[in-house]
Amino acid sequence: MTPEEVRARASGPTAGLATGFAQANLIAVPADWAYDVLLFTQRNPKPCPVLDVTDAGSPRTVLAPGADLRTDLPRYRVWRDGALVEEPTDATPFWRDDLVAFLIGCSFTFEGDLARAGVPLRHVEQGRNVPMFVTNRECRPAGRVHGPMVVSLRWIPEDLVDTAARVSGRMPAVHGSPVHVGDPAALGVADPAAPDFGDPVAAEPGDVPVFWACGVTPQAALMASRPPFAITHAPGHMFVTDVPDSEYRVG
Amino acid sequence: MTPEEVRARASGPTAGLATGFAQANLIAVPADWAYDVLLFTQRNPKPCPVLDVTDAGSPRTVLAPGADLRTDLPRYRVWRDGALVEEPTDATPFWRDDLVAFLIGCSFTFEGDLARAGVPLRHVEQGRNVPMFVTNRECRPAGRVHGPMVVSLRWIPEDLVDTAARVSGRMPAVHGSPVHVGDPAALGVADPAAPDFGDPVAAEPGDVPVFWACGVTPQAALMASRPPFAITHAPGHMFVTDVPDSEYRVG
Repeated sequence: MTPEEVRARASGPTAGLATGFAQANLIAVPADWAYDVLLFTQRNPKPCPVLDVTDAGSPRTVLAPGADLRTDLPRYRVWRDGALVEEPTDATPFWRDDLVAFLIGCSFTFEGDLARAGVPLRHVEQGRNVPMFVTNRECRPAGRVHGPMVVSLRWIPEDLVDTAARVSGRMPAVHGSPVHVGDPAALGVADPAAPDFGDPVAAEPGDVPVFWACGVTPQAALMASRPPFAITHAPGHMFVTDVPDSEYRVG
Repeated sequence: MTPEEVRARASGPTAGLATGFAQANLIAVPADWAYDVLLFTQRNPKPCPVLDVTDAGSPRTVLAPGADLRTDLPRYRVWRDGALVEEPTDATPFWRDDLVAFLIGCSFTFEGDLARAGVPLRHVEQGRNVPMFVTNRECRPAGRVHGPMVVSLRWIPEDLVDTAARVSGRMPAVHGSPVHVGDPAALGVADPAAPDFGDPVAAEPGDVPVFWACGVTPQAALMASRPPFAITHAPGHMFVTDVPDSEYRVG
């Protein structure tokens, strides 16, 4: 499927769809919260690499000029005072004229390069959403916005961990290199089989847990910081852009 | 000299000082302009790669915890309504409690890697500041902030241009790869011997002009956008950070 087709038709998680095109996390907040959110992303570039910020009220983004951010994600989350109140498939009834939307890089973008480098993707093999965890690492706060870093977990054969780190490290705009390899407890992750978002994914013998900073981090910040209103993507249900993955590859 | 010594003592351009430590452009604006400036930098990452943003009123930055942004640059520019009104060596008398300071990556940071890769640096050889030019390329605007891209010029032997592009491309946080190679007129630069900022630098036989996006771009945006007040570094008179250049090398 093309990015346009995924935006028009997908109803579930977008991992593995429109291969070769970057996917993005969405977080839209009222304009009077936009500076704090933008500064939070600047101060936490590993979990929050910004690909685009819209003008207030506009559902348009340079990442896909024909797209409408209110309708073109498969599933949304609507937040009031930091609490999840709805999970609609169409955000139009909830959109406001003062919303500023942030599109944040997604680690799905480097999965094509990982696969081409021979790194197996267990969640794709198992037909699951990537597992995500709230960690014990606090992000650097910005004004009213604060919260813990969220990570995604990929089980990777021990002899391919260096390759995975190098390949993903070439894509700093989509989380870059891992933030942690090995013992999940070091990040405060008690049980890697019980993710906070996404699906549990089984390890193969010889696999090591590898953790990347995750674009769901702004959602954890919403829950901690409690702005009066926000709209985000539902975890794993990303905005598919028209931008080739390769645009975010450095060097 | 160490970064701390340069911050305490330097009185002229900082190119070649505290080798191995990243230098930064400074632009400080009143808090009610900070969102537009931050969004402008996000939308124009090649000329405006942000390394840090301070809390309003604070002269402290994580890039050099012991430094004071009001005193530790060799020379400043003070702007009122888009016009340059002073060039003090101490910004303390001009600092305001509502100022938000942006520290923006500087191409000096990749010059160490260029030199190690065998690329000659003509401006350093000739003891001059790098030449900078206002181009005919408009940056993507953000709210009230708009303006042309400013570039720095380095004359580079033709057979080393690819090397220079590859080496600098590994440092996207300090402008990354060149934005243009060859004909200056394509950028609207009429005379490469007459820079808008910095010093003219002579080419050697076989040199090609190579242009990088430049952190003076926000100053051109100030001149075009006319915020009521701003403080910046004087071109070439950078803030020397405690961060090793290598921190900004990717892959």
